[in-house]
Amino acid sequence: MVLDKPVAVVAVVDTAHPGDTGPLERWMDANPLADILCVLGKTEGNGCVNDFTRGYATSAIQAALGRVRSRRMGATANDDERNRQSSFTADPAIIMSGGTEGVLCPHFIVFANSWDEADADENHDDDDDDDAAFELHVTRTRDFKPEEVGTPVMARATRRAIEEYLGYGGNAPNWDDMFVQIKCPLLTPERIAEAAARGETCATTDCYESMALSRGASSLGAMVAVESALGRYSAPDDARVDDAVYAKTCEDYSVFSDHVSSSAGVELMHCEILMMLTRRREPSSKTPRSKFRMARGRMDDAIDLAGVTRCVDAARGSRGTNTIVTAIVKADPAASVRGRRTTMLSDSDIHATRHARAAVGGVVAAAVGDCRVYVSGGAEHQGPDGGGPVCVISRVGGARG
Amino acid sequence: MVLDKPVAVVAVVDTAHPGDTGPLERWMDANPLADILCVLGKTEGNGCVNDFTRGYATSAIQAALGRVRSRRMGATANDDERNRQSSFTADPAIIMSGGTEGVLCPHFIVFANSWDEADADENHDDDDDDDAAFELHVTRTRDFKPEEVGTPVMARATRRAIEEYLGYGGNAPNWDDMFVQIKCPLLTPERIAEAAARGETCATTDCYESMALSRGASSLGAMVAVESALGRYSAPDDARVDDAVYAKTCEDYSVFSDHVSSSAGVELMHCEILMMLTRRREPSSKTPRSKFRMARGRMDDAIDLAGVTRCVDAARGSRGTNTIVTAIVKADPAASVRGRRTTMLSDSDIHATRHARAAVGGVVAAAVGDCRVYVSGGAEHQGPDGGGPVCVISRVGGARG
Amino acid sequence: MVLDKPVAVVAVVDTAHPGDTGPLERWMDANPLADILCVLGKTEGNGCVNDFTRGYATSAIQAALGRVRSRRMGATANDDERNRQSSFTADPAIIMSGGTEGVLCPHFIVFANSWDEADADENHDDDDDDDAAFELHVTRTRDFKPEEVGTPVMARATRRAIEEYLGYGGNAPNWDDMFVQIKCPLLTPERIAEAAARGETCATTDCYESMALSRGASSLGAMVAVESALGRYSAPDDARVDDAVYAKTCEDYSVFSDHVSSSAGVELMHCEILMMLTRRREPSSKTPRSKFRMARGRMDDAIDLAGVTRCVDAARGSRGTNTIVTAIVKADPAASVRGRRTTMLSDSDIHATRHARAAVGGVVAAAVGDCRVYVSGGAEHQGPDGGGPVCVISRVGGARG
Amino acid sequence: MVLDKPVAVVAVVDTAHPGDTGPLERWMDANPLADILCVLGKTEGNGCVNDFTRGYATSAIQAALGRVRSRRMGATANDDERNRQSSFTADPAIIMSGGTEGVLCPHFIVFANSWDEADADENHDDDDDDDAAFELHVTRTRDFKPEEVGTPVMARATRRAIEEYLGYGGNAPNWDDMFVQIKCPLLTPERIAEAAARGETCATTDCYESMALSRGASSLGAMVAVESALGRYSAPDDARVDDAVYAKTCEDYSVFSDHVSSSAGVELMHCEILMMLTRRREPSSKTPRSKFRMARGRMDDAIDLAGVTRCVDAARGSRGTNTIVTAIVKADPAASVRGRRTTMLSDSDIHATRHARAAVGGVVAAAVGDCRVYVSGGAEHQGPDGGGPVCVISRVGGARG
Repeated sequence: MVLDKPVAVVAVVDTAHPGDTGPLERWMDANPLADILCVLGKTEGNGCVNDFTRGYATSAIQAALGRVRSRRMGATANDDERNRQSSFTADPAIIMSGGTEGVLCPHFIVFANSWDEADADENHDDDDDDDAAFELHVTRTRDFKPEEVGTPVMARATRRAIEEYLGYGGNAPNWDDMFVQIKCPLLTPERIAEAAARGETCATTDCYESMALSRGASSLGAMVAVESALGRYSAPDDARVDDAVYAKTCEDYSVFSDHVSSSAGVELMHCEILMMLTRRREPSSKTPRSKFRMARGRMDDAIDLAGVTRCVDAARGSRGTNTIVTAIVKADPAASVRGRRTTMLSDSDIHATRHARAAVGGVVAAAVGDCRVYVSGGAEHQGPDGGGPVCVISRVGGARG
Repeated sequence: MVLDKPVAVVAVVDTAHPGDTGPLERWMDANPLADILCVLGKTEGNGCVNDFTRGYATSAIQAALGRVRSRRMGATANDDERNRQSSFTADPAIIMSGGTEGVLCPHFIVFANSWDEADADENHDDDDDDDAAFELHVTRTRDFKPEEVGTPVMARATRRAIEEYLGYGGNAPNWDDMFVQIKCPLLTPERIAEAAARGETCATTDCYESMALSRGASSLGAMVAVESALGRYSAPDDARVDDAVYAKTCEDYSVFSDHVSSSAGVELMHCEILMMLTRRREPSSKTPRSKFRMARGRMDDAIDLAGVTRCVDAARGSRGTNTIVTAIVKADPAASVRGRRTTMLSDSDIHATRHARAAVGGVVAAAVGDCRVYVSGGAEHQGPDGGGPVCVISRVGGARG
Repeated sequence: MVLDKPVAVVAVVDTAHPGDTGPLERWMDANPLADILCVLGKTEGNGCVNDFTRGYATSAIQAALGRVRSRRMGATANDDERNRQSSFTADPAIIMSGGTEGVLCPHFIVFANSWDEADADENHDDDDDDDAAFELHVTRTRDFKPEEVGTPVMARATRRAIEEYLGYGGNAPNWDDMFVQIKCPLLTPERIAEAAARGETCATTDCYESMALSRGASSLGAMVAVESALGRYSAPDDARVDDAVYAKTCEDYSVFSDHVSSSAGVELMHCEILMMLTRRREPSSKTPRSKFRMARGRMDDAIDLAGVTRCVDAARGSRGTNTIVTAIVKADPAASVRGRRTTMLSDSDIHATRHARAAVGGVVAAAVGDCRVYVSGGAEHQGPDGGGPVCVISRVGGARG
Repeated sequence: MVLDKPVAVVAVVDTAHPGDTGPLERWMDANPLADILCVLGKTEGNGCVNDFTRGYATSAIQAALGRVRSRRMGATANDDERNRQSSFTADPAIIMSGGTEGVLCPHFIVFANSWDEADADENHDDDDDDDAAFELHVTRTRDFKPEEVGTPVMARATRRAIEEYLGYGGNAPNWDDMFVQIKCPLLTPERIAEAAARGETCATTDCYESMALSRGASSLGAMVAVESALGRYSAPDDARVDDAVYAKTCEDYSVFSDHVSSSAGVELMHCEILMMLTRRREPSSKTPRSKFRMARGRMDDAIDLAGVTRCVDAARGSRGTNTIVTAIVKADPAASVRGRRTTMLSDSDIHATRHARAAVGGVVAAAVGDCRVYVSGGAEHQGPDGGGPVCVISRVGGARG
């Protein structure tokens, strides 16, 4: 049966290498009523500047989406009731984050809207957890010029993209919670040179540092959009105040949000934005409800096991019967953790974000009991300094086949 | 007051860099009645073949021990009752393990015998944990030739060194538990060439692989010595059977011991061996007892948080009042963890042991709540394949000053 | 004007990143009468096991070839005299070698047969260099099973592929010289596990070492085919003698050929084989002749500047008027160079082939005066131990616009 | 026989590892009349921030100097004519540069003043090269605070140290040429934090970047001192003008000197300074003359083989009979070399200076025919942007024994 309105589904698929879309294609073929909104993935490169596994996976996924689209178009050619199929033709967000250090397993997380009745949560009256429904939304910014990367211009554009898509003007709708995952660009020597040739100066000439600035600026923009919508942040009411916040990019880490995660990559010049939100429902609501739940929180530092465990327990539900689907966590390098010196920031062989991902990846995988978790490095303004946001997604009643 | 018999003490000191022995010297000066038996440390190199931070620290510690010895000699020159001072002149074992990836903090762990009454556990009658006393012992093998590294010759020599020191012939004394920490050598192109010039063939020409073989052979030798003494392993009674075990070096990982940890380094050609053991005491015993406790167990894989937590809880004691001093854990690379693919073994940028240390270091530090833990990479025959031994040391009644 | 028979052309195009085929497509569009036989490239990954830039580039080039083919098919749809176009549909060899350390510039080298009169060497009577014509040929082996990689099976299959394609049975035709460039596979933990599940043992369980074995075995197979055809090697006349040679794979480096270069990659399981040869011509020959020249030689060690310079000088021609197009060189790691210790083989941060490529890349780029040279690491049986083969390609009368 | 005045000698000794001073000690014991002024070395670490091989070697050399000093003191105890021996007790400069990528061989270069007649150039009348004598001098600055590293304060202090030692006030003495080799400090997270705790801001918070700033500032200071003394640079005559030059640190690379080489390290907080100079002699001078020659020049880019070759040829002397002792060259990372893109500056696995050292090391070793050359990475204001200074030292009439 086909639902009247689609419900959010989240699934994790394996990859044998960055260009492997076999399991992804099989999932799409097995879920013909699911419209993919976003593919969020961990690829096995260094996660830093010259990590081309992100671009490789992105290009392989785009080709796979094209192939599946062709197959579906053929299959539904004579089926005029399936006009919703056109939604598939929209361009899904592809957010690839490099770096699967330590125990982290390369994988893709599929975020989709499904019209399949089997994906709806029929028995949610029995669910005493809460009555908020899980929703997925996707938007993107325009392409940025190199000189805009990591600046207030980028922050403002990110804020605006979210607000325009969600259609609010600073007034929170009946949302319960929200988590934003962003893919943002970085600078290369060539991009910096191109800007310089036009007489423009980029925010930094250090490519690795540009990743931090880009994550930082996009996160601050998303922070203002999201936390003000949720009423948890006193949103600036004019551009000057707004810019005062954005001026803190990678300067003052006491300004942060637990609702935002951002990963930088060389393979794009704009921001891809995935929004997960939970919306309070009328008790009498008859619209289909997603089987998926989101539990959000944070790690206060890289070894804050309790911070992860709290989210995992919440995602399991009050009866502990939900199945954990995945966890999205940012890992933040720090020169010391609970007063002990680390060598992350002075290691010239392995970049700091790799160290942080490896360690936090161990903690999160151990807490979840699964290595297919999304742990991304560099949490500028995403959760507290040295820590990071945590978002655990579960499915009511166990994993699907 | 000076004790009749010394008691075991364990302390952790910081290092600002591999050559920094300031905190170590201050500890020795503050504990003039403690005779150092072993300094076990984590240094901040890559932990692989060309990690010279281990040798740097070793040479700095030797110089520091010399300076402190001179100071003590001067201080006690006219004190003929302090003839036990001579024990200080014995050569302590120095076991440096490289690699402080992720959140791991470079540090030295001091193992000493103290004649200071303040270090004895006076109130142990109140201690309902058990009545076993914690002891420390140190020995070493002869230098190995390059062609012996990683072979049954090395395994046999390691077994013999332990058995000869402890003075048993396969009959276990009243020991309760035992944990052996080894430092073993590795091969370099020069060492391999030197053997080849003599017409000898080494176990491998791959320097990185020689570390695994050396850890494996020394661990199997220690396994036979220790587990048979504890009655937990049916010790072979002739050389052929023994050799059949040693032939499994890095071949059959179903043979392993949870009582052994071994780390390889370029800075020596023999094995340094630290033995921690607990011995059952007569209830009426009046000899001084150490304030330190040892809880031993294992991780079944790299994310076996429960395995670490069990040891941490046990070390805290039945009343949970003991203070954790440190944890000694081996981290084992694996191509998959709980069925999920990892990239440790195919990563040509970062060696597998670095990945494993970083991830397991995160798990152990999170479980203990402290980044000053000894996590060493490559657990061949040390705990189950993909997992590793765990040894947590605590002090009754809280950390000292 | 369209030639009766095509002539060999070689061109170098830039890449902005591993997935960038813009300049390659522009070259193909600007050379509509050129049928690409092989794209040989340097991509900017680590050149070791987990270098996915090779696969990324391979997949991008395949897509680009498809696009250009579609455009050409459209353009020539009504042109029945252009039946040679079908040759384009044959599958060109794609040989990507990772690792552009130091000054090396990522690039693709296009090897093609051109029917364009403009590409023929009209004035070669004035050319006193020699009267041999430069030709290009491409073939490939079947897919290998993991347990065949780096073994005599692989060597035999490589020999057979070359001999069968070139259609000789050990009797040399009127060839003057020959150089073979191979792309061969490597082992991953998954491939080794797949073989193990079938009860098969691979040549090694070390993925990085499998690259050396694969290069070594494929090179020895090509050596027997090529050097015997050239009458420079006494070809074994039965399988046992042949196997005696192949048994030396990565064991006895005194057996080698200066006519072979082989690079390993994760992105294929067979061997791609490009053959460059020069064939003596009748003085009265009227068939078109390529404008390109090949000068072949070797470096005796990593700093054998004279070895490179000799080839560069030869390729420039007796009047020094030819333009150097590119150089193909293998770089071999060595624990010492001219009696001086290097750290390549004991460096656990940077793999030995990366060290060798960086240093030899500097020497070759300095000798040629251009950083767009193909320098690949690991020269097992390719040139003398520690050295490597050198092949410099030039174009008569200067580079084409 | 003992000379009236000592002559400069330069020798190269091997090291088996960073702590190996065996060959150095043997050289000292074999040259009892030589007073070491400086040990300049290449050690085998990463040459970046956390390279402790420099500190390890420095500490091993200091211990070796102490041992040799003790032996000499004993040997000369009753020899009152040897009062010059006291000069040995002065603290030699120890300048360790990390990074022996590619073919570079770890080694120490000994710079000494010898009173041994055998070291004097008796037949220099026959030497038609020139009549300048080679001299060695050593000085150092005070320790810098973290906030001074890489700033004009550091530049001024470096200038002053050189000028004060050499005793000139802007007026050049009869010097022919000069080359200055500096060892300068870098910043660590701990040093930056220490400054921050005092309310001070360091020049950068990026430890790797602090190496560039420190090399840049010290080089500009030395540039003003040296080039003005040589009359090749119009020295600023007041502090403001001077500071205008220093403000260009790592900003304007068109300001540079071919006479300066600077390497940064974590193991010191001041600058060690070695000055090699040649001074014109009276034709009738009877004072002893050094057998060593210095030829100075530059590489215009990383593959400027001709630039190195010119210096090597000059050092060989007009009759080509001098033996090359060593070459000192700085290697500069660049995003493109002769218009070709390199990946040095966007590689997050290997730092840019390592790439540059490996490639330039290959070029220099090939030009000299020896891998024991001093090639150090990061040539900010040392030679032209992308290139670097070259200084080749030779010995008249062949190498000694």
